[in-house]
Amino acid sequence: MRAGIKPSGDLDLALVVSDAPATVAGAFTTNKVAGAPVQLCRPRVAGGRARGVVVSAGIANVATGEAGLRDAERMADAAADAVGVSRAEMLVSSTGLIGPRIPMDRVLPAIGDAAAVLSTDGGEPAARAIMTTDTRPKMSVRHLDLDGRRVTVGGMAKGAGMICPRMAAAQATMLVFITTDAVASKATLAAAIGAHLDTTFNSITVDGCTSTSDTVLLFANGASGADVDGHAGFVDSVGEVMAELAYAVVADGEGASKVIRIRVSGAASDDQARVAAREIANSVLFRAAIWGGDPNWGRVAQALGQAPGLELDPDRLDVTIGGVLLASRGEQTRREDEAAATLEASEVVVEAELGRGSGAWEILTCDLSPDYVRFNADYTT
Amino acid sequence: MRAGIKPSGDLDLALVVSDAPATVAGAFTTNKVAGAPVQLCRPRVAGGRARGVVVSAGIANVATGEAGLRDAERMADAAADAVGVSRAEMLVSSTGLIGPRIPMDRVLPAIGDAAAVLSTDGGEPAARAIMTTDTRPKMSVRHLDLDGRRVTVGGMAKGAGMICPRMAAAQATMLVFITTDAVASKATLAAAIGAHLDTTFNSITVDGCTSTSDTVLLFANGASGADVDGHAGFVDSVGEVMAELAYAVVADGEGASKVIRIRVSGAASDDQARVAAREIANSVLFRAAIWGGDPNWGRVAQALGQAPGLELDPDRLDVTIGGVLLASRGEQTRREDEAAATLEASEVVVEAELGRGSGAWEILTCDLSPDYVRFNADYTT
Repeated sequence: MRAGIKPSGDLDLALVVSDAPATVAGAFTTNKVAGAPVQLCRPRVAGGRARGVVVSAGIANVATGEAGLRDAERMADAAADAVGVSRAEMLVSSTGLIGPRIPMDRVLPAIGDAAAVLSTDGGEPAARAIMTTDTRPKMSVRHLDLDGRRVTVGGMAKGAGMICPRMAAAQATMLVFITTDAVASKATLAAAIGAHLDTTFNSITVDGCTSTSDTVLLFANGASGADVDGHAGFVDSVGEVMAELAYAVVADGEGASKVIRIRVSGAASDDQARVAAREIANSVLFRAAIWGGDPNWGRVAQALGQAPGLELDPDRLDVTIGGVLLASRGEQTRREDEAAATLEASEVVVEAELGRGSGAWEILTCDLSPDYVRFNADYTT
Repeated sequence: MRAGIKPSGDLDLALVVSDAPATVAGAFTTNKVAGAPVQLCRPRVAGGRARGVVVSAGIANVATGEAGLRDAERMADAAADAVGVSRAEMLVSSTGLIGPRIPMDRVLPAIGDAAAVLSTDGGEPAARAIMTTDTRPKMSVRHLDLDGRRVTVGGMAKGAGMICPRMAAAQATMLVFITTDAVASKATLAAAIGAHLDTTFNSITVDGCTSTSDTVLLFANGASGADVDGHAGFVDSVGEVMAELAYAVVADGEGASKVIRIRVSGAASDDQARVAAREIANSVLFRAAIWGGDPNWGRVAQALGQAPGLELDPDRLDVTIGGVLLASRGEQTRREDEAAATLEASEVVVEAELGRGSGAWEILTCDLSPDYVRFNADYTT
């Protein structure tokens, strides 16, 4: 629906509802300034049962105090009432500007309008409605067959800026909503999210800014009749949907022209590799170089050198960009322009081998362009 | 001198030499990938005596292995020999690209040429020669009178990008060279740097990238005859020169149009305030907003919410931008455009009061413009 939150007049309200009672699990931002919708959802998701979520875009309902909490609750109540389910089983999620309040006089009627036009093929407009600075909707679907029954796992995501999710399970402005018709316990859903959260959404960054509203929700309503508890294939399918959506968020990062896949190996531990990969991914210097087609391995070394607590022996560092080994044992072995052509691809792989152990991690980010800055200079004005 | 390191053919070599034996103290980068010049200087500075420093710009001599260490030593030796002082008392410092080696065949003759034209009024061309992406030379001078004797403290600095010094004393690609004609022990010099390092150079950031070459050196040759040991006025003068040069580095940050002074107060401790201020200063989202003239306080709140280990109660947060209180106790109290006019000044003050204690810290940064990205996309190519 168009509730009129976005000044553009674009779609800005989505309602996701299960026909049948459903189990739910989720993950939310660890930013200490968590939005009102996140505060409302945490205990409800912990309860493990939900029928749906109402999502608004344009204003995040963050830093809005008690009044904001009431607004979030009124949105959830309006959605629950409109579709005829228990108020305690409706969730709410909002994304957009921090600070202002959501105009209830426009949103509440729009929620009623949305409930009246719920349909099984509304996924694509819903994925558009939750967009803010995104340039395209992001959806993913997987099917698996289980004892002759077909199970579907489908998800949508929004997010392009303020993207550096660091979410804690059972509790990302990345919003991700995944639904399945599997029969699944709350524990199975939580385990499926937990198995993949760190390697998908928590391993992407656009700008190093962890949103106050990051949210992942996974609903299962059992309509397929296939019980997936203890079924690894289901966990894998959820993971594939999560990975595809995480990739799509980075690929649509504000101003981005390419995805940068940062692989750190040879670290003392996986945790050490993650610290290292994240430091490279958050380097504006390195990301600007990649935008410019400059395979500047020295900025990889610089970033590693400042990674907090990283055990690093500069003399053992190998750096490969786009498959071209540029530095071996800490020294440049080839002219950087020999790797420049590889930067024309839509995805660039950057590999740093630390030579200390078997720890490895991969982080996805995107290049940093002047458009990112222009975009974020104009976001509210 | 023009040694021919910079492709532009600009001045790229400076030689600073004291006529008389001098004491020295310094501070160097904590980046684990420290350049060869930094590795050479650390033990020499620890010795407390030096006659000068030869500085080259264009190539940083970082990640160059044993050969790079030999290059650094050859540069220092050439400078010492050319001016006729002990080789152990000559320091070396380099800034520029990470990875390539400095062309010794051009630099060594240029060092000899520089020694032949040393003069007491060479400060300004020296300050130009050490520039890389800087748009202007940075110099500062203070005088104090002591028992009828006039003491001078003068300094020069370079740095515009890869600026987020986190230096450890006695040991930033910010280069700072300060000289004085005071009579001062090594301990006094070290104390003078130590008293101000954290509040000056270690409290500035342009891009959150800690250079592999950051260096501060303070030389005292006693030519004034005034002994400043135990004299607080001297320490203050050194601090004023350090603060002026630190400000100049930020004001000349790559692509910057204004300085952002971030003041955090009401933190549980000064250390907590520093963590908070640094997180705001390193937010590309917030810095882009300031470039765009958008006093986006929500991005201040977002940054605080992700500051590692920060004790934060969002309901107690006040945010003031350009003297306009935009948020009180965690909620927006005024339209952000009421503060927009204040962003037209060359310096913008951003104040965050956390309401938890008496800890306070101030960090200087600059706005993030599309030019920063363009510049760093083109740096090597």
